[in-house]
Order: sequence, then structure tokens, then C-alpha cells
Amino acid sequence: MAGNSFGTLFKLTTFGESHGEAIGGIIDGCPAGLELDLNLVQRELERRKPGQSAIVTQRKEPDMVKFLSGIFEGKTTGTPIGFVIENANQKSGDYSHIKDVYRPSHADYTYDQKYGNRDYRGGGRSSARETACRVAAGAVAKQLLHGMTFTAYTAAVGEISLNKKPGELNFGEIENNPVRCPDSETAGKMEAYIKEIRSQGDTVGGVVECIIGNVPAGLGEPVFDKLHARLGQAMLSINAVKGFEYGSGFSGSAMKGSQHNDLFNEDGSTRTNFSGGVQGGISNGMEITFRVAFKPVATLMQKQETINSEGEKIEMQGKGRHDPCVVPRAVAIVEAMAALVMADFYLLNKTSKI
Amino acid sequence: MAGNSFGTLFKLTTFGESHGEAIGGIIDGCPAGLELDLNLVQRELERRKPGQSAIVTQRKEPDMVKFLSGIFEGKTTGTPIGFVIENANQKSGDYSHIKDVYRPSHADYTYDQKYGNRDYRGGGRSSARETACRVAAGAVAKQLLHGMTFTAYTAAVGEISLNKKPGELNFGEIENNPVRCPDSETAGKMEAYIKEIRSQGDTVGGVVECIIGNVPAGLGEPVFDKLHARLGQAMLSINAVKGFEYGSGFSGSAMKGSQHNDLFNEDGSTRTNFSGGVQGGISNGMEITFRVAFKPVATLMQKQETINSEGEKIEMQGKGRHDPCVVPRAVAIVEAMAALVMADFYLLNKTSKI
Amino acid sequence: MAGNSFGTLFKLTTFGESHGEAIGGIIDGCPAGLELDLNLVQRELERRKPGQSAIVTQRKEPDMVKFLSGIFEGKTTGTPIGFVIENANQKSGDYSHIKDVYRPSHADYTYDQKYGNRDYRGGGRSSARETACRVAAGAVAKQLLHGMTFTAYTAAVGEISLNKKPGELNFGEIENNPVRCPDSETAGKMEAYIKEIRSQGDTVGGVVECIIGNVPAGLGEPVFDKLHARLGQAMLSINAVKGFEYGSGFSGSAMKGSQHNDLFNEDGSTRTNFSGGVQGGISNGMEITFRVAFKPVATLMQKQETINSEGEKIEMQGKGRHDPCVVPRAVAIVEAMAALVMADFYLLNKTSKI
Amino acid sequence: MAGNSFGTLFKLTTFGESHGEAIGGIIDGCPAGLELDLNLVQRELERRKPGQSAIVTQRKEPDMVKFLSGIFEGKTTGTPIGFVIENANQKSGDYSHIKDVYRPSHADYTYDQKYGNRDYRGGGRSSARETACRVAAGAVAKQLLHGMTFTAYTAAVGEISLNKKPGELNFGEIENNPVRCPDSETAGKMEAYIKEIRSQGDTVGGVVECIIGNVPAGLGEPVFDKLHARLGQAMLSINAVKGFEYGSGFSGSAMKGSQHNDLFNEDGSTRTNFSGGVQGGISNGMEITFRVAFKPVATLMQKQETINSEGEKIEMQGKGRHDPCVVPRAVAIVEAMAALVMADFYLLNKTSKI
Repeated sequence: MAGNSFGTLFKLTTFGESHGEAIGGIIDGCPAGLELDLNLVQRELERRKPGQSAIVTQRKEPDMVKFLSGIFEGKTTGTPIGFVIENANQKSGDYSHIKDVYRPSHADYTYDQKYGNRDYRGGGRSSARETACRVAAGAVAKQLLHGMTFTAYTAAVGEISLNKKPGELNFGEIENNPVRCPDSETAGKMEAYIKEIRSQGDTVGGVVECIIGNVPAGLGEPVFDKLHARLGQAMLSINAVKGFEYGSGFSGSAMKGSQHNDLFNEDGSTRTNFSGGVQGGISNGMEITFRVAFKPVATLMQKQETINSEGEKIEMQGKGRHDPCVVPRAVAIVEAMAALVMADFYLLNKTSKI
Repeated sequence: MAGNSFGTLFKLTTFGESHGEAIGGIIDGCPAGLELDLNLVQRELERRKPGQSAIVTQRKEPDMVKFLSGIFEGKTTGTPIGFVIENANQKSGDYSHIKDVYRPSHADYTYDQKYGNRDYRGGGRSSARETACRVAAGAVAKQLLHGMTFTAYTAAVGEISLNKKPGELNFGEIENNPVRCPDSETAGKMEAYIKEIRSQGDTVGGVVECIIGNVPAGLGEPVFDKLHARLGQAMLSINAVKGFEYGSGFSGSAMKGSQHNDLFNEDGSTRTNFSGGVQGGISNGMEITFRVAFKPVATLMQKQETINSEGEKIEMQGKGRHDPCVVPRAVAIVEAMAALVMADFYLLNKTSKI
Repeated sequence: MAGNSFGTLFKLTTFGESHGEAIGGIIDGCPAGLELDLNLVQRELERRKPGQSAIVTQRKEPDMVKFLSGIFEGKTTGTPIGFVIENANQKSGDYSHIKDVYRPSHADYTYDQKYGNRDYRGGGRSSARETACRVAAGAVAKQLLHGMTFTAYTAAVGEISLNKKPGELNFGEIENNPVRCPDSETAGKMEAYIKEIRSQGDTVGGVVECIIGNVPAGLGEPVFDKLHARLGQAMLSINAVKGFEYGSGFSGSAMKGSQHNDLFNEDGSTRTNFSGGVQGGISNGMEITFRVAFKPVATLMQKQETINSEGEKIEMQGKGRHDPCVVPRAVAIVEAMAALVMADFYLLNKTSKI
Repeated sequence: MAGNSFGTLFKLTTFGESHGEAIGGIIDGCPAGLELDLNLVQRELERRKPGQSAIVTQRKEPDMVKFLSGIFEGKTTGTPIGFVIENANQKSGDYSHIKDVYRPSHADYTYDQKYGNRDYRGGGRSSARETACRVAAGAVAKQLLHGMTFTAYTAAVGEISLNKKPGELNFGEIENNPVRCPDSETAGKMEAYIKEIRSQGDTVGGVVECIIGNVPAGLGEPVFDKLHARLGQAMLSINAVKGFEYGSGFSGSAMKGSQHNDLFNEDGSTRTNFSGGVQGGISNGMEITFRVAFKPVATLMQKQETINSEGEKIEMQGKGRHDPCVVPRAVAIVEAMAALVMADFYLLNKTSKI
């Protein structure tokens, strides 16, 4: 398997499966001299971890990160930052019921096709468990970028959408409700809907919006590594993501240029921000705004028809504790990946001019 | 500037600006022994080139590609394939009217912020002229992947959408109309609308859909380099793109798991394809389907307010020959980028099993 | 710090300092389906570990590697292989005597210049402790390449050289003496010399030779990643290495072409092997032979003048348990790095032809 | 073929064969705002080009470099710098006599083994013609690093060595003799020897030494990308190179630590420089010194036995105009590669501290 690294200069490499002993990662390229608050790292992991509220999976997993290198007397030394997170919840249980089963809309079939074998005790490497490493690394990246702000929130759960503009939202509200929606009334509806869906043994998708603030102009590398192209890759690499748009996004494709162009103020800021803070792949100093679509979780507490590795039809039903909707926990992952992208561009940009 | 390369094993690196002498690129990693039909490469360039129909820019640019290395007696030798495309149309004209002007929703401002100077004779490196190199390289990638099919088409122009399912479309129709829409009736409406928009000195956005067929299961690298994540980066790196979705995309986020899961047939194919041909970042053998949103072209034939590099308000109006809508030409670029992504994964996959 | 990864397809990334809690690494890109004998990995670590004989450092360090991912039911799954090795011997001792001291010919000064701070409790990241991770990963690479042989040995300690040709050596002898010299008589002299040097509180350098056997023709990527160029980087990246040569090496520069050319036999093998198994950066099927020069260890048990971080002259003397000569332990590291290089080229070569 | 790129941030990618239409390259990552003197680039190419003196190949090749992008009004813009050099001397001659022949100690056999076919009209991609691109790019790197000095020279031709220390040499002499030796008396002997060897239809190897001056402390990335490890790869990637050593090199392996350690002066400089300007992979501010061994040219003007692709014995003799000794021309290539390595580390080092 290739592709377990992300970034050019601020580079995260991760390892680990859902049912192995531990997951972990290495951050290579974090500059020396950065004071790191490890409590902030742990706090971000709390936002992603299972069991945090009544509407997420009730699996218990402490998700304690242990840093093994790269930090001395509270500061980064410039050497690689290695860390591990134990899989406390993995059990040497009985997996014979899923060993040969290809669960619908899971990666069981594709892993078998690609690798010829797989760790059948769960999602293995395709489990979203891996994203805990991203959140840990993203929390380091955020500290490198202190001043920039990363604000993700739930903008839709199923068909329940936040029908307000970013300016009308109360971001202080986000962590006040288990859905992480910046509008308490909508949050209540979303929460009720998730509970209803769960009671049906079903699941539902949703949308996360994210705003990156206080971004200096000049970040991003034109052509293949445009700021929004790397953000897009980052978001699409998160489990269950089906789409990415920034600024005006898909709705911008229905507009005319005379509506869509962002006219300048005299200070270089723009009156509107259909651009989403990026022109030609480079940040323009405005807020970077983007949206990420998540599909409904594939594991249902309902009977489903499927096949086994012999191609025989069988019937199966999910067991255990799964999320009815990933969006509330995904908010932390979206912010983390955004921070990884921006940290990389921040470092790259130090070499753009003599 | 970093980021002028794309791909890990099948790797394209490009150079060149809109007003330099030539643009070009190097394909590194194309296997030896591939019979290359250079006419097919030129034919793809024709689909992207300016002046091809009444609804695109009337700029004349022959876009003849010249291969300089890596091919001997009609076959690739395994050595890097270098190529150049002359900029026949660049003129040493008078650019004083735009030299210090920041055009709205162009990259003038961000390049100046990032690099401290820029080639002010046009879009420079941020011009979509650069994508001609991608089309040339994509045409090589397509030949490496012979058997796989890449079918992109115009799915929307402004608010005029193709309201049919892929199965109802006539792909033979795509090259029969200047819009590249696989439905002649919709194509007619789109064409008329583009002409109307142009007569107003305005521009309009649109959506390109793409279907990759005959994909073997097993392509794609899970985690950060998921098949759809790299496709997303590839598409978002095309000029004017604002969004990317695959399979069910944004609409999938409003669905329930019980609707969205793709149930298996006994042969491993699935009854529905909300997954868009990818599970866990790996192709599952079904068609890969995705959509790309393009914003309206920023250069208008209308007066617009803007500022110059001194921060002074000025008024400007586009000159010359520009596209009222990029979508008809972008179809070739979308296919080319898709082919580059798939060629890379095709080669990577040769090393996934012992 | 960048550069903690090695390889393109078979890629090792490492972390860890001499006095942190643990060191470790991630192998990304090992193909699925490889049966891994973890005892062989541990056995290679034994060959590198301190305290293994009377002529190496007497530091006690069990160097037990723990694999955390990527292996299931005895086989690789294709997912990244994460591993850690605890630093059992690191002590929270008193380092005030070296905290501000720049030890001669160590990396204290350069780390401070580069990073502005450093972990002063020992060599930190510049310690050869890091090479334990390379040996662990190299032992995985060797198993991927089963059939190829990697035979390194001590060819010189100080001025005592092995004055025999490879054909005259008894490789079965290598592990029979603590110096790892394939000639028992020379081994005895080397061992006695190392003990004498140590009794003087001094240290000495040496040369390791390595032969890679059963190499298929065709491995290596011409131009910048020539087989011997990557081998050279690999060897020069080992602590204390000052030089690398392959085939005829430096002595070849004094020869005439009529002596140096390797004439072909009818089966494509060559009568001589001044080429060292590589032509144009690609293996030709003959044995790959190379030599690596190691400088004497910089830590002496003698008084030396030096300076502190204030630029003041001071006198210091090494404490603790250090190697009088690194060469006997380096043999395992040389083999490991050679195996990492060859594993990468082995995978890359799967994509060189259609 | 992979591996046609060199560098992480200052990255050169090259293409082209000896008998194609042109060779060329792309420099990605050169910072914006650098004033480039293109005459200096051409001057470096003159030092490498054939026909420059009586002791090198008499092939005529103007080696005019044409820059196609990345430079505007005399300064770099930050966009990739594309360039081509025409192959003026390639002829569509008759190659039937070498088409199926494997020349001894050339890459004909290994290319055929690896790729299954090759451009048989000459060395193709394995020809040292490719190094012209490196010299062009190195001349850009040198200008980025203005202040640093790169001084390579011939230190040995066959068994005739320069028996002087760097301090005793007159570097002003280097370009005054065709051998590029900084001692006129030795230069005379070398020149006479090369002529004698050529009159025998034979060839001879040699050694190039290089000194990089005015290097700031702190350049280089520890572990796998140590400064000297990347320098080593760079040098070993040059055609015909068999060995690399820096500082004390192979002779250092015979020394004791008490002799070899470089004691500090109070200003951080060292009294001796056995380290060769590098500690722990990072520059320490002293001169960087290294030596590169070149084998004798494989093409002889004598009859040699060899085989063809059918494995049949045949006799052959070189035709045309070849170098009897590559060292005088290689001096420019060594400097260029050294400059590429240092430019990359110079940019990387901008991100080592916050």
C-alpha cells in the first residue's frame, strides 16, 4: 500500500488498523522551536473520539496519544515527532461471521481484490479509526499556524440543512450541542433526527462546512498543488466523503461572471467571496470556505442481503456499536486535515521569493 | 513555485506561460514498449484548442505538439517523454493597460502577493493555456490504459442541466455538437444560451460529468491517496473548477444508509452504483462516475471596477478573444486528468501483491 | 527536519532519539502476501545491538522490536508496517556536564546552528541508535527479496586490511568472530588491535565490504536514481561513513579502458567485474560489490580540548560505554540499507515494461 | 524509467537522448525575484561541451541553451524554468553495425534487459549528453547561491596525481590548461599522458576534487538526506563515476579518533577539516571538500571481443569521436551537481526553525 503519507514539507505518515495493537504516525518537517501544548492535542482527540455523546457510537476508546520523539523540554526539536495511540477496545473476539463476508458499500471486497488477503476483524486499515492519527497531527499543525483559525461545523444532517449564511451563525454554539451545529434550533432538529434514524437501525449522511480565518495572502502552489486542490484531496481522503466544493462551489457553476466576480476594495480585500479565499490556487487573504459531503454509514442494524467471498448470497446484519451519522465526529477530522494542508503551504511559501 | 508535477509513477511535469515562447512537459515513468499513435495525441489537443467552434474563444493557436524524446521507431523506450507546444499566438503587444491592474477574480493579485512580481502580459502560468500539456500527456496515458474508456461531457451550462441518467444518454452525440453534450436537444439550448450570454459581454459556468469504464477492481491506494481523492485533486487543479463529487456526491449526503448501500450481485458487481465505482479508495470494477463544477470565466466584455497595484480604484474592460463558457473545451481536460490519475494507479497496482 | 524517509515504493520513515522513550518506523509499500519471519528480524537486530561482544560498547539495550500493524496471520496485508523499539537504556541522568558543550567531530554544534536547540542528553537524533530501525526494516526487505543474498563483512580496521580477493574468502567465517571478518587470521589481528586502541582510550575507523548476489539484471533507474547512486546515498547516510565506492572504485580511476572493460561471455555474464554488477545505473546480473569507509568514533576516553556554546574553551573527556570501532556492528546496517535500496528497485522494476 | 528528477524543493527534471532532436529540462522551485545572467549559464555549458580542446572529443556540438519559461524581464518569476538544448550533431547515419551489439562496459545490455528495446543509435539516455542539462540547471543554482563558491578541478589522470594540499594550489590556474588542473606542471604531464593514451586507441580514468566555500552552517538534513549523502548520490549519478569520498574519506578509515577529531577554535571553526565541512549530515561552516572517481571511457579505438543480442561472439571497434578521458569536461558537471544539492538544502533550511 502506498499513499500513507500526506504533505511535502509538513509531512504526516500513519500506520495502524482498527484491530491491531496500536495506531500511530510520524510528523516529519515540523520546524524546531515550537512550544507544543499536548493538552490541546488531547482535546482535539476528544472531539473525534467514540462515546462522547448519545448520538455517536457507544464504543469506549480512550484515544490517549503518547508522543515518543521530537519534543524536548516542551518544544519541538526539529526531529520527527513519533506518536502512538493504543487500540484499547480491540478484542480478540469471534469474527467468523464476517470473515468471508463482503459487507455492502464497505471496502471488504476491494481490499480482497487488491491485496489478495485482509485483516477481517473489522475495517482494518479502511476503518475511520486511522483518522485519530490525523487529528493528533492536525492539532500540532494548528499550533504551528497559531493565529489562523479553523472552524468546522455540521451544516446538514440528511435533509436538515443549516439555512443561514456564515455571518449569521454563532460559532460559540458549535461545541454546545452534540451535533456540532452553530445554530441551536437546527441542532436540536438534527439531534432528534439522528436518534430517530438510529432507532430504525438505519444511518444518515451529512455535510460539514469549514472556514479558515486569518490566512495570509500567498499560500498555495499554482498548477497541480493549488490550495483548493490539496484541500480537496485532503477532504476526499477522509472516510465516507463523496464531495468537496469551495467558495461558490457547485452553485457557482450556474452563475454568470458578472455576478460571480469578487470586486476589490482598495485594500485588496473583496466585497464578496465567491472565490472562497483562493485565486489561481493561492490564498488571497479572505476567509477560505469549503463544504464536504459525507455519505450515510454503511453498517446498518438491519438485515441486508450480500455475498461472501465464494460469491454466494447470504444475509447479514451489523453488530456492535456504530455511528448512525459520522458528521458530528467528522468536524474534528475536517479541521485537522485543513490544518495539515495549510501547515504544508505555510512552510512551502517560505521559499517562494528570494 | 512548487507543484508542477503530478503523479508518483506515471509523472507529468509541465512548464510554460501563456505569453512565453512555448509550453511543454516531461512524462516520466511511462513503461517501455508502448506503441504510441501520435495522431491520437494531436486529436485530443484539437478538442481543447481555441477557435474550434463558434462558442469558444476565437483566438487562433495551432497547438501542435512536438515530441522530443522517449519514443523510438513508434514505441516508448522507457525514457522520459519530453514535448513542447509553441505559443504561436503570443504577441509582443502593448500590455501597459493591464500591467498594474488586478483583474477581479483573476490570479493577478495573488501572484503579486506570493512572488513579488509576475509576467503581466496575460495569465502567465495561471492561464489555462498550461492545460494543453495535460491534454497531451493524458492522451499518452489513455493509450497506456487501452481498454479503459474515458467519457466526459457537458452536463450543465449555467442553469440548463442535462436531466437524464447516464444510461439514457447517447455518448455518440458528444462530439456532434459544439457544447459536447450527449443529448442534442439540451445541447441546442446550451449553445443558444452561451451565445446569448456572450452577446451581453458576460460569461457563464457549467458542469462536466465523466465516466470511466472497464476499470479493473483494485486500483487506488487507500488512506491519503484514495482513488477519488487523487481524482478530486486532479479535477480541482484545473482552472476555474469549484467543486468535485463522485458517485452519489452531495446528494448522497441527504440519503439514508438503507437507500445508499450498493447491494452485491453474485459476481461482485453491484445493483446500484451510488459508490461511483470506488470503495475505501479502491476501484470495485463498476463504472467510476464523477462531476466537476466550473465557475464562469472571470474576463468580461463589460466594464468592471477594480484596483491597481497602488490600491487605486480604476475601471477596466476585457479585451481580446475569451471564452464565454469554458465547459465545452474543458471536457478534454477532464478526461486527460482522469487518465493521468488512472495511469498512475495502474502502475502502482503492479506492486500491491507479491 | 526533512529527510526521515528513504525509498520511493518500498519506503521507510523513522523517528526517535537516543534518549527518548522509543524509536521506531513505518514501512510503507511492502506488498501484501509476504510471509514474514519475525525471528529473522530480531536476529538481524542482534547483529547490530550493543553489548554483543567484548569489542563493542558494553551498553545494555535489548533492542526488542514490536510490530504494531501491517501483519496478519503471519503475512503482510499490504498496509503500512509500524514498529517500535523501546529505549530501555536511556536514563534520566545528569547531563549538565555536556549540556552546553560542543563535542569535537560530533553533531552538537551543527544541530544548534540549524535548529536553535537540541536534545542535549546524548546524540539525540544524530545518534547511531536510529540505525536499529533501519536494520529492522532491512530484515523485512531481505525477506521480500528472498533469493538475493546480502553479505557484508569487515574488510579493514585501521591499517589492518583483508588482503584477499572476494573469491578467496570464507563467508561462513563472518559470524564466527566478533569483528565479522571472513578470514580468521586477519580477524584475530583486528580484534587485538581494537582492544589495544580501546585500552588507550582511543578509537579507530575501518572499511566494510558488501556483496549482493543473485541479482536479476534490470534493477535500477538510470540518470539520477542509478542503482549505485542510491546505494551510495544509503551508505553515506549511515553514521560515521566517509566514502563509498563500487566495483573498481577509486582504483578504477587509475586504470586504462583496455584493462577496465568487462568483456562478455556468450551468456551475457562478464569475465571480469570491474563494473561491480552495474552498467548505466542498472544491474547486469553479476554480483554487486561495494565498499564503505567509516571514520573513527568521535567519543574518546581521553581528555580533549573543546568549546561550549558561549565559545569558551573547556576540557572534556567521554564518559560511559562507547564503541572503540563501529565497523563490527555496522556490518548489519550496511546489509540492511542495501536491502532497502534493492527492495525499492525491485518494486519499481515491475513497471518498466508494458 | 523513473528517477529523472533530482531535488526536493529546487528540483530538476530532465529528458532527452543523444540522438533525439533535443534534450532539455525543467527547474521547478527556483524562488521568484532572482536576477539571472544567462551568459553565465552558457559559459558553464562551454566548459562541458565537446570540441573545446585538443584532448577531448572533437565532436562539434554548439550546446546552445534556450530558456522557454520562468524568466521575465531578466528575473525569475517563480514559475518553472523550462529549457531545451538542440542535438545539432545527431545524424541519421547508419547504425546497423551497432544495432544488435552489446558494447563492453556500456549500458546496451542492461537497457535491453530492463526495457526490452532501446534507441540503438548511440548511448541514448545513458549517454553523458544528458549532463548538459545538469550543467545548465547548476548554473542557475549557482546564481541562487551567490556568495558560495564551487571549485572543482582535476586531481588525477590515471596514475598521475596532484600531490599537493588544497592550500598549496592555485585555483586561478584551473581554466588555464585543458586538463583543468590547478598546478601547471602536473597539468602538463596529464595532458601529455592523455594524448599518449589516445594515440594507443585507449582511454584512462581520473579523479575530480571539489571544494565548496562560504557555506553557512546549518545546511543539510540529518538521517537519510545528510548533506554528504545527497552529494554522494549526485556525484554517483554522473556517468562513469565509481566512487565518492568527502573530508578524510577512505584514508580516514585508517586513522585513530585522536588524530581525526577536528578540534574547535573559539569561533566555532575547526583547526583541521577531516570532517570535510559536514557533521551529522549538516554543514558546519568550514569548506566542504570531496573527491569523485571516474572510470576510463568504455569506447576504445581498439578491437574488442564482444557479443550481440543473439549471444554470438563478434569483434568490434569504436568509431567516431570520443573522449580519451572524461575528467577535464566532468569538472563542470561536478560543480553543477554540487550546486543543485546545495540549492535544495538552502531552500529546505528556510523551514528548519520557527
